[in-house]
Amino acid sequence: MENGGEAKWRFGAGNPAVQASGRQSLRALVTRVFDCVDRNDPRPVAPLGHGDPSAFACFRTAAAAEEAVSAAALSGKHNRYSSAGGVLEARSAVAAYLSRELPYELSTGDVVVTAGCNHAIEIMMAVLASPGANVLLPRPGYPMYESRAALCGLEFRRFDLLPEKEWEVDLDGVEALADENTVAMVIVNPNNPCGCVYSYDHLAKIAETARKLGIMVISDEVYDHCAFGSKPFVPMGVFGEIAPVVTIGGISKRWMVPGWRLGWIAATDPKGVLRDKNGALPQIIANTDKAFFEKAMDVMREAAEICYRKVGGIECITCPHKPEGSMFVMVKLDLSCLDGIADDVDFCTQVAREESVVICPGVD
Amino acid sequence: MENGGEAKWRFGAGNPAVQASGRQSLRALVTRVFDCVDRNDPRPVAPLGHGDPSAFACFRTAAAAEEAVSAAALSGKHNRYSSAGGVLEARSAVAAYLSRELPYELSTGDVVVTAGCNHAIEIMMAVLASPGANVLLPRPGYPMYESRAALCGLEFRRFDLLPEKEWEVDLDGVEALADENTVAMVIVNPNNPCGCVYSYDHLAKIAETARKLGIMVISDEVYDHCAFGSKPFVPMGVFGEIAPVVTIGGISKRWMVPGWRLGWIAATDPKGVLRDKNGALPQIIANTDKAFFEKAMDVMREAAEICYRKVGGIECITCPHKPEGSMFVMVKLDLSCLDGIADDVDFCTQVAREESVVICPGVD
Repeated sequence: MENGGEAKWRFGAGNPAVQASGRQSLRALVTRVFDCVDRNDPRPVAPLGHGDPSAFACFRTAAAAEEAVSAAALSGKHNRYSSAGGVLEARSAVAAYLSRELPYELSTGDVVVTAGCNHAIEIMMAVLASPGANVLLPRPGYPMYESRAALCGLEFRRFDLLPEKEWEVDLDGVEALADENTVAMVIVNPNNPCGCVYSYDHLAKIAETARKLGIMVISDEVYDHCAFGSKPFVPMGVFGEIAPVVTIGGISKRWMVPGWRLGWIAATDPKGVLRDKNGALPQIIANTDKAFFEKAMDVMREAAEICYRKVGGIECITCPHKPEGSMFVMVKLDLSCLDGIADDVDFCTQVAREESVVICPGVD
Repeated sequence: MENGGEAKWRFGAGNPAVQASGRQSLRALVTRVFDCVDRNDPRPVAPLGHGDPSAFACFRTAAAAEEAVSAAALSGKHNRYSSAGGVLEARSAVAAYLSRELPYELSTGDVVVTAGCNHAIEIMMAVLASPGANVLLPRPGYPMYESRAALCGLEFRRFDLLPEKEWEVDLDGVEALADENTVAMVIVNPNNPCGCVYSYDHLAKIAETARKLGIMVISDEVYDHCAFGSKPFVPMGVFGEIAPVVTIGGISKRWMVPGWRLGWIAATDPKGVLRDKNGALPQIIANTDKAFFEKAMDVMREAAEICYRKVGGIECITCPHKPEGSMFVMVKLDLSCLDGIADDVDFCTQVAREESVVICPGVD
């Protein structure tokens, strides 16, 4: 090949695992629905397809949080590389924050600070992706798990959440799916997208099942304390003596700052079955008062109430369980009374087109 | 396995690729040298093993940069999720910043904002890791490339940088290493760890070689404009018409804020051989005055001068080329006049122990 002619380039389509990973994109799905909105429709678009309330004035983060970031930037003390696992003070603050509700104390070394919870998911899937291994994921679930597992070649199998049982985990299904190559199961509590909060007893049963199967529990608690129903939020780490638990969390949801990309991984594993796990946000955690969180829960509870009531008045939609946590409500469509609607994606795109309301399909 | 007995856990050592990746860690190496410092030594530790000058008062970032971050935090406008490729205004600011020195204009769609340059490296290695593909990396080099390639199963082959030719790329070696599965070569300019800056002519030859081989050039320009010698910094993108160039950059080094984790990937590819590539920092780029950068270069030039002169007075160390760019100087040890020193790691650990000076081994 000479320089004059048309060069032949050897890089082709790239890594097929990256493409497989991209197919599991919630963002792509929501964007597809968004693109159906009629730009000539004078009504404001109602963007309900994602767990990010920060666009709305009633959900602005605590002033203490914004001031802490501003002060950190102006101090000049945080311009340097931090250690790979996060600034020590932050890791220590996260350890103390989580320890408040655990029957044991976490140490700084139990916490790693990540660039948001998606980064935490990425790390966990990569770490678990030994050849032949598989991981059990909930259905309905958060597609980032599937996406990151696909990218690193980790097989995933899906267990059901049971709508008739307040979206609890189908533990018999978990046992049936697991084999000797299963290394972990993932739960999301409070649950995205089902809006449920798991009881103490159900979490204990999950831990017993994990112990029986010899697997770890990855507990995605990014919606920690985002519980406004009858059941309080209980961290899975409470059961860390039964089976090792890796807790994924962050300030995205409780502080309403998903754009700040601040998450963590914590080994809530008092028996040290795991080991060698590894955080910066002491001021944010220390200086945000209770009233901020209480007000947020009041607004969410009311929004969930309104949503559940209104949905109940629509013939073709049923909601198996009133949301008690997270920022979502999961509903079932009765396609038989919806003329000309093929499936949930079709329904969502039509609603976007006709009503400028963006909701997220529950596709499998 | 019953709950009472000792549980048998199925997750074992985890993903061996993660461990292979971890073996390519510059941080681990520098930490190992650091740990040799005698804590009872009253002299302050001289930490010279990394490219992070922000610990020193003379290298504090521009006030405009700190103020921009503070204002962004206090505005409440950036708490939301951004698009995956970065906030549009940031991508547009990076496109304009890079276009100043290119013979063509980049658009917003050519730029993706990343969580620092390491994240940019991670993305590029993952995208290129199609089955069987290989990538050509410079030796001496920046181990993150090897680490991320190992993690995603991308074969890497190393070409030499030639100390006797001002650390230029051994282009004959590149041609000899490449085969039909080679997809890309990586250059670092200004160079970490060799401290050289590549001339316009040498970069043109690199582009011609890439074209001949049908591969893309990944140009790591995190030290862009960090050039204080005779040769000006020329972006590889200038040669994007000859072969497609993916430019990796960020504000870590020029603005001295590596801890802020703000990098980018830009497709400097005017012919559109690549496609579909995808940024937030307009105020930082717009409001930092020239004097900030000039002062930083003056300090670095003087430091490089002193370092080169002093090293020249040490019998067992030779420096093939006075540093002209980046934050590094690469030297050669003459082990024959160093009694009881086995290799470079041994030398560095001894220097740390005896002198509290932390330097980075040049191990292969």
